[in-house]
Amino acid sequence: MSVNQKGVVMSALAAAVGLLVGGLIGHFGTPTSSSIMTIPEEDQQKIILVDKLVTDKWTKEVDLKQRMINLVDTSNLRENLRELTSKPHLAASERDDELALLIHKRFVDAGFDSSDMVPYRVLLSAPDPANPNSITIHDKDDKEVFRTKYKEVEVRDGDDSPDFVHAFTGYAPAGDVKTAPGVGVIYVNYGRVEDFDKLKELGIDVAGHIVIARYGKIFRGNKLLHAEQRGAVGVILFSDPKDVALEGVQPQEVYPNTFWLPGSGMQRGTSYMLEGDPLTPGWPSTEHAYRLSEEEAQLPNIPCQPIGYDDAKVILEKLGGQKAPEDWVGGIEGVAYNLGPQMTQEFQNHSIRLQTHNSRKVSRSYNVVATIKGEVEPDRYVLIGNHRDAWGYGAADPSSGTAQLLETARVLGELLKQGWRPRRTLIFCSWGAEEYGLIGSTEWVQEHVEKLAERSVVYINTDTCASGPILNVPASPLIWDAIQDVSKLVPGVREGKTVYEEMAAYHALRNKSSPEMTTLGGGSDYAPFSFYCGIPAVDIWFRNDKNKHDISIYPSYHTGYETFYLMENHIDPGFRIIQGCSRMALLTLKYFGDSAIIPYSLERFPEAVKQTLESLKGSGDRDKLVKIYEKYSLLEESVDNFTAATSAFANKLKTLESSLNDPIMIRAINDQMMKLEQVFVLPAGLPGRPDTRHAIFAPSQFDSYAASGFPGITDLLYEYEGLDAGGQRKKGEEIKRHVSDLTILFQRAAGLLKEFHFI
Amino acid sequence: MSVNQKGVVMSALAAAVGLLVGGLIGHFGTPTSSSIMTIPEEDQQKIILVDKLVTDKWTKEVDLKQRMINLVDTSNLRENLRELTSKPHLAASERDDELALLIHKRFVDAGFDSSDMVPYRVLLSAPDPANPNSITIHDKDDKEVFRTKYKEVEVRDGDDSPDFVHAFTGYAPAGDVKTAPGVGVIYVNYGRVEDFDKLKELGIDVAGHIVIARYGKIFRGNKLLHAEQRGAVGVILFSDPKDVALEGVQPQEVYPNTFWLPGSGMQRGTSYMLEGDPLTPGWPSTEHAYRLSEEEAQLPNIPCQPIGYDDAKVILEKLGGQKAPEDWVGGIEGVAYNLGPQMTQEFQNHSIRLQTHNSRKVSRSYNVVATIKGEVEPDRYVLIGNHRDAWGYGAADPSSGTAQLLETARVLGELLKQGWRPRRTLIFCSWGAEEYGLIGSTEWVQEHVEKLAERSVVYINTDTCASGPILNVPASPLIWDAIQDVSKLVPGVREGKTVYEEMAAYHALRNKSSPEMTTLGGGSDYAPFSFYCGIPAVDIWFRNDKNKHDISIYPSYHTGYETFYLMENHIDPGFRIIQGCSRMALLTLKYFGDSAIIPYSLERFPEAVKQTLESLKGSGDRDKLVKIYEKYSLLEESVDNFTAATSAFANKLKTLESSLNDPIMIRAINDQMMKLEQVFVLPAGLPGRPDTRHAIFAPSQFDSYAASGFPGITDLLYEYEGLDAGGQRKKGEEIKRHVSDLTILFQRAAGLLKEFHFI
Repeated sequence: MSVNQKGVVMSALAAAVGLLVGGLIGHFGTPTSSSIMTIPEEDQQKIILVDKLVTDKWTKEVDLKQRMINLVDTSNLRENLRELTSKPHLAASERDDELALLIHKRFVDAGFDSSDMVPYRVLLSAPDPANPNSITIHDKDDKEVFRTKYKEVEVRDGDDSPDFVHAFTGYAPAGDVKTAPGVGVIYVNYGRVEDFDKLKELGIDVAGHIVIARYGKIFRGNKLLHAEQRGAVGVILFSDPKDVALEGVQPQEVYPNTFWLPGSGMQRGTSYMLEGDPLTPGWPSTEHAYRLSEEEAQLPNIPCQPIGYDDAKVILEKLGGQKAPEDWVGGIEGVAYNLGPQMTQEFQNHSIRLQTHNSRKVSRSYNVVATIKGEVEPDRYVLIGNHRDAWGYGAADPSSGTAQLLETARVLGELLKQGWRPRRTLIFCSWGAEEYGLIGSTEWVQEHVEKLAERSVVYINTDTCASGPILNVPASPLIWDAIQDVSKLVPGVREGKTVYEEMAAYHALRNKSSPEMTTLGGGSDYAPFSFYCGIPAVDIWFRNDKNKHDISIYPSYHTGYETFYLMENHIDPGFRIIQGCSRMALLTLKYFGDSAIIPYSLERFPEAVKQTLESLKGSGDRDKLVKIYEKYSLLEESVDNFTAATSAFANKLKTLESSLNDPIMIRAINDQMMKLEQVFVLPAGLPGRPDTRHAIFAPSQFDSYAASGFPGITDLLYEYEGLDAGGQRKKGEEIKRHVSDLTILFQRAAGLLKEFHFI
Repeated sequence: MSVNQKGVVMSALAAAVGLLVGGLIGHFGTPTSSSIMTIPEEDQQKIILVDKLVTDKWTKEVDLKQRMINLVDTSNLRENLRELTSKPHLAASERDDELALLIHKRFVDAGFDSSDMVPYRVLLSAPDPANPNSITIHDKDDKEVFRTKYKEVEVRDGDDSPDFVHAFTGYAPAGDVKTAPGVGVIYVNYGRVEDFDKLKELGIDVAGHIVIARYGKIFRGNKLLHAEQRGAVGVILFSDPKDVALEGVQPQEVYPNTFWLPGSGMQRGTSYMLEGDPLTPGWPSTEHAYRLSEEEAQLPNIPCQPIGYDDAKVILEKLGGQKAPEDWVGGIEGVAYNLGPQMTQEFQNHSIRLQTHNSRKVSRSYNVVATIKGEVEPDRYVLIGNHRDAWGYGAADPSSGTAQLLETARVLGELLKQGWRPRRTLIFCSWGAEEYGLIGSTEWVQEHVEKLAERSVVYINTDTCASGPILNVPASPLIWDAIQDVSKLVPGVREGKTVYEEMAAYHALRNKSSPEMTTLGGGSDYAPFSFYCGIPAVDIWFRNDKNKHDISIYPSYHTGYETFYLMENHIDPGFRIIQGCSRMALLTLKYFGDSAIIPYSLERFPEAVKQTLESLKGSGDRDKLVKIYEKYSLLEESVDNFTAATSAFANKLKTLESSLNDPIMIRAINDQMMKLEQVFVLPAGLPGRPDTRHAIFAPSQFDSYAASGFPGITDLLYEYEGLDAGGQRKKGEEIKRHVSDLTILFQRAAGLLKEFHFI
């Protein structure tokens, strides 16, 4: 029992006894204290108990919310970030383990009820430190005339570290491919399906060639996969100044003088398309778990290497062939952006060689998992997680999030020491090996899947907390309203009164609904919670101001220039953004951890679904679907029914809520709502995607970063047009079946919201 | 609030107030009544509420249990059975729909809170009434010299009915196959894998031949499948006197004079190997659901026809070839039990023709689902179900169970009218189309799968309630103790004091542990609940006394002789067995519906698992497994850990139970236990069996009737020895992976029983 609780309850009881005693005094004079105590202790306990079980601590504890906000300290955040970014901390490195231990100790010191270091043995990958990867150019005598850098130029003293991992693409194999004299590489723009389609249209076949793609638009793993599927033998990835150095490439225009990327900045990153340890799909990588051979794992089979725009220039400027389409032209000065593959006249005897020396190895990676036991419902979980591993210093990704996690834990620890305790259990997770493919979180979810699906109220993710000043909270529609409620309580990180106001103003400027809420794409540790389990999740971060710079991610992402210096001087001076992130996290934890009735926004769910259905109309996909499946409109009808069921439930709940005094009824209603999103989890996964099981909101297969409504439909329709009649018939049957399945899922979801005893 | 409850609570409150008032009176004289009422109404309500939420009605309501027992009336049961068996009621027939409506009305009349007729459109199959199936024998001129019967000879007036379906095998296709002159059929004993192996050993290849198999030992669908897999072109099934007429085949030795089967008794039945509508695997057959084509459905492709032993004699006596192994010899007098396929010398110019005219058709079949809303936990379900459809009159199968269901509903209706109401919701189900493949229950479970998995405490099945006097209750080990507890309260159906005593004495005679409890095999509507969802289930029935007759099933099973007359005169004179079945059902409903803490026997679960592990040792399978997978012993270790976790939990629960006064804690503990068996559900099903997902207790693939521990291991090992090196390597990897998966499942299960906030 918390101090606050006891306070409230005891005074209610005192009031009751007082009333009685008062009445008695009026009639009979002063009672002895023993006569007051004759209300049986047992019954007193029952009254206290009911009050404890039904109290809505979120509404009641107004002061506490304000204290939480006030307790988040920017100098703590600064110190956390400094410590976390003092050395590189690649997944499963010595420093990564040290940080895991540091985080564990912080949880223990904060007075958490448990904290555990949870190891998994998982397949990771690394370059050979003694034998760096390279792209080289050779003249007619095969003499090497150029070699790419394998690490960033140290443009600021102290930024380099002997532990810094050389540039490489995670899981891309070792390889050595060389072009024939006069043959260069093929420029494939962003490496999207439509880019390769365009090349085909232009008569350029990438089979047998090395391709070069600029970063951006889609997940790098998709770029690599698309290239491999089309027979390319190697991939070079580069950061284009048009995306990473919008104000120029001169020293004064880039880091450390601005937040833009210098010419040797190379974006590291994984190429793995699935989630979790590649050797144990669907199952946790516990010590003795059965493992696939590497050959059986779904990993890329062609070498890949990222480079900076300085090195890219040397390669691209030698490419001849057709000019690239206008919108493929990037920002490297002096480069014509030809498509290749032939070299220009001047280099017709030159060849290009891509050599990588990466290797894969099973390594031990830790999660840290700590809990604050819930007072009323210890078996209901509100989780918060953040990964720990980085390609380098990871000052933004993920350490801005980790700094938040530690401060959030500290604040809760303060309150715990003062006697507060949440209604539900809070779980703090520091994930390992996220950068390789959400491995730590995925393995943990796979180990505890039933428990988590059964007990989790919400999963709150932070990854890169601070890469700009605009709150961005992609989430399950079930928690959109709650997140907005919270954002209205958190002070703004710029001049706005609240982060909500700042976000709304930002979206208003961009002609969006105000504020625009979105669903989750791929790319961080919420994925196994949301897309595998159907647990409502949110990713809390502050993004770049697109009204200022229209870039998709901060320029130094995954490069050697993502340093503490960058954060303190360019991205988050004063650490108010990370502070905002911590406050969002804290209040979201409290909202879901302390409300008697879980604050899900049920009606947002069908709204978001209907938006998706509308977008299918807009894109012409609905017409295609109706042509393929004459019963397609039944899906729309079932969504309408679901919408009606949801409204009816939400209305009933509004009527009930204030009068709900039966703790079991509160629990039953919560259980009903907690199951709602899980109804849309297909046990065997989406067609061809066993790891992605959320049939409504999950990333599309063709861009793992992007959110998609009805990912199964998107995937199945993707290449439908290009199929022959037989292929279309077969795919058509798959589409019919999937649409029928979706229709039934919405019927099930509506059924879940019926009165309990109606089946 | 129930009358009883209110009684208890109000007196407690009165006592409390009395104490207080008594104290006051002593000091201050007589208080006015208004001063008593000054205990705030709100607090009074809280005290009443807590008492209601935590009371264990199973323990408290001793008299009610006795009243339930007394209320079960044999004349009602007789009348129910008479009405149910007055006409044949094949699935989806007019009479089947009439009975559905009758049952629905009974639920309504009993005062249930809801009752619904729930239709599904499912694929069924039937013979052509105008063109009966036959096996004919033709002489050298192709003249037909013999033709099998297609319906039973009417040996008792009134047993025939124009609506009685002719003999056929469900889903077996129409077909017309004829042997060459001098070629007969091949006798394959019971049609088990080992029988076909034996034939191979004897140099007999069934490919291209019609085979004849006797009923018994395994599910008929397996016989047909085994034959088809080996290239047979048709199957004849017959009932052998050794199994169905142990006291002779003369009229005075068989029905209607005894319960043994006359010579024209033909066992109808399905041949479908999976569960649910063959056209919608994994999904409910709602009106507009996507359906496979018949060709895509997993249905048999060769014709099959059942016959009686009189007709079988005519065929078997003409078979030449080798003599059958000694233990293959059945009980038809004058038959040598040769294996064939050649005919005897005398018939060397004769041939045999199998013609079937079955067709398949999508038909509407109803379930009836009715509920009694729970007072405290309306969202927790205790379900009871029984199918309604029969191949004929179905007097034992399923109408003895349906008679029980109706009487059980009536008794609860009586109590409802007197103000009683269960803690949890009770759900009554009358399933349609069970005989074709558990179709009604499976489609319903598939429609409501999340809701049922989440909310169900137990599923109680009755099918054939009465086929003999011995209580038989295969069940999930989680409810073994509860079932025994209940059986100790139910009066014996013969001379025993309780049905428990009778069961124990019976097993003692058979040198079994006393009483022997077993897990569930396939074959009735508990399958989708248990094997697909992991919901603890029990099948309550009274079986034949094997000490008297060692037969696996009553002789008239699925034949035209399974009549009301048979039940009243031979199987259950006085209807005391169906009465015992109703009493078992009623008290099981109350036990799980009214106990505050669900009476699961947690420790029986690992005990049963360990028994299975021991049996693997005994059979030599453990040695094989260790040879295949060097880490096999980790599975045993994880079972040991699970055992320890279970004991610790059970012990803690024993300590807690009497002091548990927090309704949310009671609920949380129940939730924890309810999830336990579901941990063992593999989302994508057992290897190659998407519909069977229970990894621990489920039927083996090679006999759908039989219970199996670790069905995945059994299945994978089944044909391992016969594979070549490459095949063994591949199968070996599957085995390794499955054993590893099982190991992890036990770790998860142990984890589920930890303290709530420990992950």
